[in-house]
Amino acid sequence: MTTAEILKKAKELYSSSAPLDTDTKNSAIMLMADALESAADSILAANKSDVENARGKISDVMIDRLKLNKDRISAMADGMRAVAQLTDPVGRVLSETKCENGLDIKKVSVPLGVVAIIYESRPNVTSDAAVLCFKSGNIAVLRSGKEAFCSAKAVVAALKSGLKKANLSEDYINLVEDTSRASANELMTATGYVDLLIPRGGKGLIKACVENATVPCIETGTGICHIYVDKCADTYMAVRIIDNAKTSRPSVCNAAEVCLVDRKIADEFLPKLSACFKGRVELKGDTEVCKIIDAAPAGENDFDTEFLDYIMAVKLVDGVEEAVRHIAEHSTHHSESIITEDEKAAAYFTERVDSAAVYVNASTRFTDGGEFGLGCEMGISTQKLHARGPMGLCELNTYKYIISGNGQIR
Amino acid sequence: MTTAEILKKAKELYSSSAPLDTDTKNSAIMLMADALESAADSILAANKSDVENARGKISDVMIDRLKLNKDRISAMADGMRAVAQLTDPVGRVLSETKCENGLDIKKVSVPLGVVAIIYESRPNVTSDAAVLCFKSGNIAVLRSGKEAFCSAKAVVAALKSGLKKANLSEDYINLVEDTSRASANELMTATGYVDLLIPRGGKGLIKACVENATVPCIETGTGICHIYVDKCADTYMAVRIIDNAKTSRPSVCNAAEVCLVDRKIADEFLPKLSACFKGRVELKGDTEVCKIIDAAPAGENDFDTEFLDYIMAVKLVDGVEEAVRHIAEHSTHHSESIITEDEKAAAYFTERVDSAAVYVNASTRFTDGGEFGLGCEMGISTQKLHARGPMGLCELNTYKYIISGNGQIR
Repeated sequence: MTTAEILKKAKELYSSSAPLDTDTKNSAIMLMADALESAADSILAANKSDVENARGKISDVMIDRLKLNKDRISAMADGMRAVAQLTDPVGRVLSETKCENGLDIKKVSVPLGVVAIIYESRPNVTSDAAVLCFKSGNIAVLRSGKEAFCSAKAVVAALKSGLKKANLSEDYINLVEDTSRASANELMTATGYVDLLIPRGGKGLIKACVENATVPCIETGTGICHIYVDKCADTYMAVRIIDNAKTSRPSVCNAAEVCLVDRKIADEFLPKLSACFKGRVELKGDTEVCKIIDAAPAGENDFDTEFLDYIMAVKLVDGVEEAVRHIAEHSTHHSESIITEDEKAAAYFTERVDSAAVYVNASTRFTDGGEFGLGCEMGISTQKLHARGPMGLCELNTYKYIISGNGQIR
Repeated sequence: MTTAEILKKAKELYSSSAPLDTDTKNSAIMLMADALESAADSILAANKSDVENARGKISDVMIDRLKLNKDRISAMADGMRAVAQLTDPVGRVLSETKCENGLDIKKVSVPLGVVAIIYESRPNVTSDAAVLCFKSGNIAVLRSGKEAFCSAKAVVAALKSGLKKANLSEDYINLVEDTSRASANELMTATGYVDLLIPRGGKGLIKACVENATVPCIETGTGICHIYVDKCADTYMAVRIIDNAKTSRPSVCNAAEVCLVDRKIADEFLPKLSACFKGRVELKGDTEVCKIIDAAPAGENDFDTEFLDYIMAVKLVDGVEEAVRHIAEHSTHHSESIITEDEKAAAYFTERVDSAAVYVNASTRFTDGGEFGLGCEMGISTQKLHARGPMGLCELNTYKYIISGNGQIR
């Protein structure tokens, strides 16, 4: 099927059917999870061919992300089963107004419609994205990166067989068969067919979507996260938090990339940081930092780079005001943290820093759907419209007004 | 000042200042409203020159929209004072989670930042948009149509003098000085400077924004609104509602444009509709309709046209299912209504029709910020992301997570 045909069928299914009730969706999710595990052999065979084709073309880290085994498939199925346990976001009455003229105005949560996801090489995104769309009442149109296409196809085939067992249309979950750039562009410009486009992947993909999409699109993921160590910081706590934010999982978007330090405590604090990171994290310092500790001189772009590695840029600033200014210029509006015992500095920072998540005395690593109590996550929005920060099931809904009357005119 | 300079200053003001408190904003709004009335003479002089320049270039209806007088200026000022009375949308705690690890996660409403509005020739949009942005904590960047530029400039000068009297920066409200297409394009692509772009105006403007904007943009306004008369309709009520929806104010987006009628009651209903509209509204019918009543034959595009006039397209359908299918294909997702006494048909319609406002037995004319209890309106969103239907002050906010800890790491 062409991408256009898939989109047309998806739209038709959405327009012609009433939202599925919660029990129907949850039983179907359990059947899909079972089908995924039952199809493990064919999924692993498909994955093996993906891995063989990709060798030499993508990095070892990416190969590792691509590779599946029985345990990973079971983890994917369990992830789906966990979504079945979450509260159904559809049909919540968000507000209700009974007007003097007798009109009853209800604001009710409803699915968005057709949600397209363009992603790269992690096969688990296929089942994650599919189940989140399905539970939130949307029709999923998945567009996998070419490296993972055979795996994605086998996963989607399993999910479709689960839908069939549940006596539901297989068209709730769709995979675009074309992995060329043309199909991505087609999704970005499918006005009237795609209600939301979510790019999940590297900077290049997200930039292409933001620049070219004419359908509604949510920018996700890039995180140049800052930690500012205030003059009133508990420096022991600061080192501990920075260590966690930098090294607990450097490849993820909520890992810290830049440390800003109040000049007044630089002499005391920087040696502690340096000692903690010695041999583990490369520090890139501005001129002043390099005078105090042994650090590589930071280059021009080091304060605008998402390293996703054991590297951290360090800069001295003149108090919280300059820290806020630096963040306004350089952050990607994902997550930033201040370490301070001074409530006024904390309030100044949280009021002015314009990011999805602003922390006081905690690691930026907490910016995550699970940690924020959403139960799951479709991505982390770094824009301000519709959803900001971790996107869970509720963020995959919109609302409509349903107004009941008995002949009211205006 | 160039548009780029205005945007830079706007962004700097937003990044460097804490949100203004409610009292400060409300007193400033009252001072701006007073300043607007005090400046009536200079505003009227500027408006006179706009009107003289526009004569012969735009329609009489548009000239009438452009024209100001003392009463209209006072109405603009009163509109601002009414916004001062509305609840401040900024700083609402939307949810709060106290985690087991001691983290306190607050989801708090915050301004979007810099909001740009591209509009056309109604000078009252200048003060309306400015005050809604200001009250919701945003920096307004207004870009008026060239026909109304002198009026807009005089209005903004008055508002800035009000801000000055309130000892606030005049940069909270800005008017782009260039009215060429270049300045509109500049706003559409000012990534990193414009947090939300709202086009208010005709179809061409909105289409240009949706297609060219790389900054977040909300599609507003176009309304091809449908009323479906079910076989179980109270036909007297149906005529009354359609009359109101079509004729109470045909030039607005919530006016009805298309009437769908269940074939089973066409013989009974259509003559009543025809009698009511005789000499007042031109009916354009499909072949079957033209056999029953005296109507002009509908052309190919008549079911996809926002007439904004005393014209209505009429079509017979085979029950609520076909009505829903027709609406899915032809509506602009603004407002649609079903007239029926059958609860099942009503539920089928409200569940499936994918529009911002779906009515049962009421006029589509109620889709309005004031009627929906929002107190005011920045426009009516016909898209699904962020805001749907009337946009009030809350819809001009986003949220951020503020997380307080005492050393938590993950």
